[in-house]
Amino acid sequence: MNFTSDNWAGVHPAIADNLSRHAAGVARAYGESDLDKRIEAKFNELFEREVAVFFVGTGTAANSLVLAALNRPGGVVFCHSEAHIIKDECGAPEWFTGGARLQPVPGPAGKINPARLIRELGHFRPDFIHAGQPMAVSITQATEVGTVYQPNEIETIAEICRGKGIPLHMDGARMANALAGSGMSPADMTWKSGVDALSFGGTKNGCWCAEAMVFFDPSAAKDLQYIRKRAAQLFSKTRFIAAQFEAYLQDDLWLCLAESANEKAASIARILHADARCRLAWETEANEVFVVVQESLANTWIRQGLGCYKWPAPEDIADDLAKDEIILRLVTSFATSDDEIRNFESLVKGEA
Amino acid sequence: MNFTSDNWAGVHPAIADNLSRHAAGVARAYGESDLDKRIEAKFNELFEREVAVFFVGTGTAANSLVLAALNRPGGVVFCHSEAHIIKDECGAPEWFTGGARLQPVPGPAGKINPARLIRELGHFRPDFIHAGQPMAVSITQATEVGTVYQPNEIETIAEICRGKGIPLHMDGARMANALAGSGMSPADMTWKSGVDALSFGGTKNGCWCAEAMVFFDPSAAKDLQYIRKRAAQLFSKTRFIAAQFEAYLQDDLWLCLAESANEKAASIARILHADARCRLAWETEANEVFVVVQESLANTWIRQGLGCYKWPAPEDIADDLAKDEIILRLVTSFATSDDEIRNFESLVKGEA
Amino acid sequence: MNFTSDNWAGVHPAIADNLSRHAAGVARAYGESDLDKRIEAKFNELFEREVAVFFVGTGTAANSLVLAALNRPGGVVFCHSEAHIIKDECGAPEWFTGGARLQPVPGPAGKINPARLIRELGHFRPDFIHAGQPMAVSITQATEVGTVYQPNEIETIAEICRGKGIPLHMDGARMANALAGSGMSPADMTWKSGVDALSFGGTKNGCWCAEAMVFFDPSAAKDLQYIRKRAAQLFSKTRFIAAQFEAYLQDDLWLCLAESANEKAASIARILHADARCRLAWETEANEVFVVVQESLANTWIRQGLGCYKWPAPEDIADDLAKDEIILRLVTSFATSDDEIRNFESLVKGEA
Amino acid sequence: MNFTSDNWAGVHPAIADNLSRHAAGVARAYGESDLDKRIEAKFNELFEREVAVFFVGTGTAANSLVLAALNRPGGVVFCHSEAHIIKDECGAPEWFTGGARLQPVPGPAGKINPARLIRELGHFRPDFIHAGQPMAVSITQATEVGTVYQPNEIETIAEICRGKGIPLHMDGARMANALAGSGMSPADMTWKSGVDALSFGGTKNGCWCAEAMVFFDPSAAKDLQYIRKRAAQLFSKTRFIAAQFEAYLQDDLWLCLAESANEKAASIARILHADARCRLAWETEANEVFVVVQESLANTWIRQGLGCYKWPAPEDIADDLAKDEIILRLVTSFATSDDEIRNFESLVKGEA
Repeated sequence: MNFTSDNWAGVHPAIADNLSRHAAGVARAYGESDLDKRIEAKFNELFEREVAVFFVGTGTAANSLVLAALNRPGGVVFCHSEAHIIKDECGAPEWFTGGARLQPVPGPAGKINPARLIRELGHFRPDFIHAGQPMAVSITQATEVGTVYQPNEIETIAEICRGKGIPLHMDGARMANALAGSGMSPADMTWKSGVDALSFGGTKNGCWCAEAMVFFDPSAAKDLQYIRKRAAQLFSKTRFIAAQFEAYLQDDLWLCLAESANEKAASIARILHADARCRLAWETEANEVFVVVQESLANTWIRQGLGCYKWPAPEDIADDLAKDEIILRLVTSFATSDDEIRNFESLVKGEA
Repeated sequence: MNFTSDNWAGVHPAIADNLSRHAAGVARAYGESDLDKRIEAKFNELFEREVAVFFVGTGTAANSLVLAALNRPGGVVFCHSEAHIIKDECGAPEWFTGGARLQPVPGPAGKINPARLIRELGHFRPDFIHAGQPMAVSITQATEVGTVYQPNEIETIAEICRGKGIPLHMDGARMANALAGSGMSPADMTWKSGVDALSFGGTKNGCWCAEAMVFFDPSAAKDLQYIRKRAAQLFSKTRFIAAQFEAYLQDDLWLCLAESANEKAASIARILHADARCRLAWETEANEVFVVVQESLANTWIRQGLGCYKWPAPEDIADDLAKDEIILRLVTSFATSDDEIRNFESLVKGEA
Repeated sequence: MNFTSDNWAGVHPAIADNLSRHAAGVARAYGESDLDKRIEAKFNELFEREVAVFFVGTGTAANSLVLAALNRPGGVVFCHSEAHIIKDECGAPEWFTGGARLQPVPGPAGKINPARLIRELGHFRPDFIHAGQPMAVSITQATEVGTVYQPNEIETIAEICRGKGIPLHMDGARMANALAGSGMSPADMTWKSGVDALSFGGTKNGCWCAEAMVFFDPSAAKDLQYIRKRAAQLFSKTRFIAAQFEAYLQDDLWLCLAESANEKAASIARILHADARCRLAWETEANEVFVVVQESLANTWIRQGLGCYKWPAPEDIADDLAKDEIILRLVTSFATSDDEIRNFESLVKGEA
Repeated sequence: MNFTSDNWAGVHPAIADNLSRHAAGVARAYGESDLDKRIEAKFNELFEREVAVFFVGTGTAANSLVLAALNRPGGVVFCHSEAHIIKDECGAPEWFTGGARLQPVPGPAGKINPARLIRELGHFRPDFIHAGQPMAVSITQATEVGTVYQPNEIETIAEICRGKGIPLHMDGARMANALAGSGMSPADMTWKSGVDALSFGGTKNGCWCAEAMVFFDPSAAKDLQYIRKRAAQLFSKTRFIAAQFEAYLQDDLWLCLAESANEKAASIARILHADARCRLAWETEANEVFVVVQESLANTWIRQGLGCYKWPAPEDIADDLAKDEIILRLVTSFATSDDEIRNFESLVKGEA
């Protein structure tokens, strides 16, 4: 019953098998193998247009190097106050951009409030260089609190970006979970909604280290191969990242895995929703459940074997918590089993 | 008959199998799993003392982050003119150190000439800050031209470092090849000879992405976990790097693989040595052979299927080449087969 | 009647004269002249203890290089939401620290709220490296809204810093204005209250480019000479910065100039306070006056010749403004004349 | 008799006076004053075309920020082995470019050997990203050994640059000395010979801190105002840099001062040339004289009051020195007097 994080899971068997299948033989290094090229081309298909795609080993690398490619001197990136890039990457985006500032923008349910974004952007003017210059907006999909931006919400932000002449980045570490069961295509959720560059994550959804940077305008990525190499993210045997993506994308495995994780999260949400001692902090729209409970109850559950994080309450809901209440985050993954859900239900119902 | 590079090889079956074996299950992320901890501890055993060890995904990351940890403002690193860090890492060491300079030091056979090192270090004085300050010496083992530093050679350089109060780094991307058949232990070749920090490579010798930074004085590495995370090199599922090292170090697999590669290189060297049209540029002491041949003959071989690099002639031997001569680099790996060697012999003897 | 900024003023005659006086002759460059050494020593006297002092050319350089010297990988600096370093230095602190994050902390009257600082610091734990590590707190004295931290307020923050093992930096671009008429000594306001490092500004108070970094524990500054040189802030003829400070500190000129500026600001505040159409946004404790007025009235004044900035309303008082109200910032300097104050009074009283 | 460096001199009276003249009054800060604008426009006149010009405080800043503006990821700058940017700026160019490498190129008399430049550039190919990418060539005028590039020599290098699509930078810290008495115009020596960007120095020639970055294609400098501000080089009272340049350029003062310094250097060279115990290391074409003498004689002179540097022998002439010979560098400035030259002559002739 471990819902600590989806990155505590291992590797899906189809992906592990594909790594083994490609283990033998000799192939060009540094992204030049046939397999690399074939899987890169697969991304064009996936996104229904020609894209520039670059494989890297971690989500932090993908986010940081996309921003490095978009950077301008004195650059400022606007992201949600709870965004992974600002809370959990130890300054990597700042490091790889040579010191860009991440400007937090608040908003309910983990999403940037467009009005606040406009206000923050309004503080920057071309004739006042002291403040720096806006260089990108970054949104997280699914968000850090388990919600999902709808296309019209993305379009609204994209329009603000266009008005300021800056690109829109999507941190898609959990994009699969955002897409699964949404009826939307990858294209719908990204460039058709105005996204310019994407961190496409595989690691949290069954790969062991497969992340891709996707630029919908390939010309914006012309220096990225140098940026990636200089960042120590060009693997010599990069074809083993390609091999992960090959299995991951084959027959929509990635969406199936995400759908399974989402269903488990929905079950957890249902179980908690039915319990009068709890309330959900936000809607469960992907594979993360955030529940408000009394700390004593939370501690009991944890003692009884529930693996999860106590989550720091974001500014916007901190005041809604009673003094003895806290937030628990429960994350499911492709590997979460029905048994774990049943055990969790028993735990909550006091039958454990 | 592909001798282009050892990083064109794939993954040794024992390592691939171990990745698969660990694919299932749930474990703490970000280097905190039992497997991570167990393999980290294994490095203490390997080096016969307590070390600080950090897993990363690429050799460039290992080199760059070791240097970042050793860095000082205005820092200057001294390395051989042909070192990988100065020739082949696209400025990653400079990037991760925030602009340290790599000062090339010449020397025969790919090794730093101690007298030249002393002379270069002599240009830096505490009272002349304009030149910057020496912050490390870095040697490559095996060297970029396939030779191996002997312990006394390392000790000589280490003594120079101590005299200047700066640490000695070893880029051990091919340390296994340097050790195999040498009769030396990993401890002998490193800290017992005065090495302070090591990039310990597995990728070129049968892993797919397993590199470790090893600090023989753990206190020198206290900020390294932040440096690694900020550099986007802390993998969430880092246990799969640990899993590679587990198999790699098991029953001296790593040394067996390196020994096999070295033997194949020795065979290639013998074949070429026996051919009057060729001469070896340097002794073959590890898994790389550098041969001087007429360009026309080289082209014939390549047309007939020989995979290898034409190697730019380093300064110190450029004048020894006739106008129509070039250097070919042939690299063997754990995966090089007897058949490939036989085919190569046939090729050279004109029987192909 | 120009109250746009104190850095629109020129150079005080005594300082200009001293520059001229030292113009002739030959002296050691790069901070090694007798004059440099003598004025550096003067800082020991000024602060009643041995300090390490480094001259630079801009306030942004002083702030950024102090923070660079204090930096740690993944470092986070805590400063007030309206601090100059976060609002007005175009990312220089982030640049010179290699990407440290500036974490805004709110608080009334331009001062960090200690409770909020504790809360923000609480988000960082040694066992959670993803968030980075706190590396300094920075306060501005006088603050960006013209108020002054009292010694006990500084001590409170210093104690929080000590509890976390991080240093306290004071951006003293307007420290003279904070000191003038306070009855406190420079030592009282800095190290005796727990400040570890100081940006000591002269430029806004009658110099043309004289700023100093002062470290109260000289051992914390051992690499600073390299950091300064690498930052292009070691002037060859640095003795002309020393010459400015020589005149600036002579016979307490600096405090006289600041006192004059403060008195002029007090006059402006009195004039505005007496006018029913206005209210002061914050107390006027140094040389800056912030007044809330209807935008139409502000525009009239500006049309009639008032030089000043319309100031963006900080978060904490934005809600107190009526829809048609704005904030004007009026800054006085050593050069502000009685005539300008009289003219301003006439303007406000409609007699202009 | 102090010939240690031209930056040991003070400030020319006309420049000191002009600083004083502008000391009073109020003016827009941060480069927006009328004086700033007027002097910026003066540079168009000086160079006979529209240029983008940015004032900074040190020569290291000018060089580093020009290179920062030209930088590309993995960038490599080619400069002479003895260039100031590689020998004497403590890594500032590397810092401000985020880790660009400075690749030394040898050549006689302090000038880049074009054949060697072509060879070094040849090591970089668009399909081999591991080496990084060339991003600029930088030449020093006058050179670090007191010689001067002739227009055809600059053109040769500029043509190589154009062939590779990279810009040519000139470090003109002593450009006045290179121009004085040459019959060439500033335009001739720069853009008409193929120079794209210039560090135009005033400090070594009678200013106290006046340096300018000049871009002959203004569009190449569009981000430079942010780069300068982020680098802490945008002075609030930048009009005092403008004031220095105003006097410096008035009535060709700058060329007169340089001519005077050059004449003094020529006298020194004549005196030494006439002495059988000495030989000049290089032609004296500007304001620096390099003489080869026995160390014992040099020490005698120094004991008798000669101020100068013992200069490390560059690689290319080190072998020409006898075991007991060293190189002395003697630098003259605008402030060097006839008396000093006479005293020097007496010293050499043993009449002192």
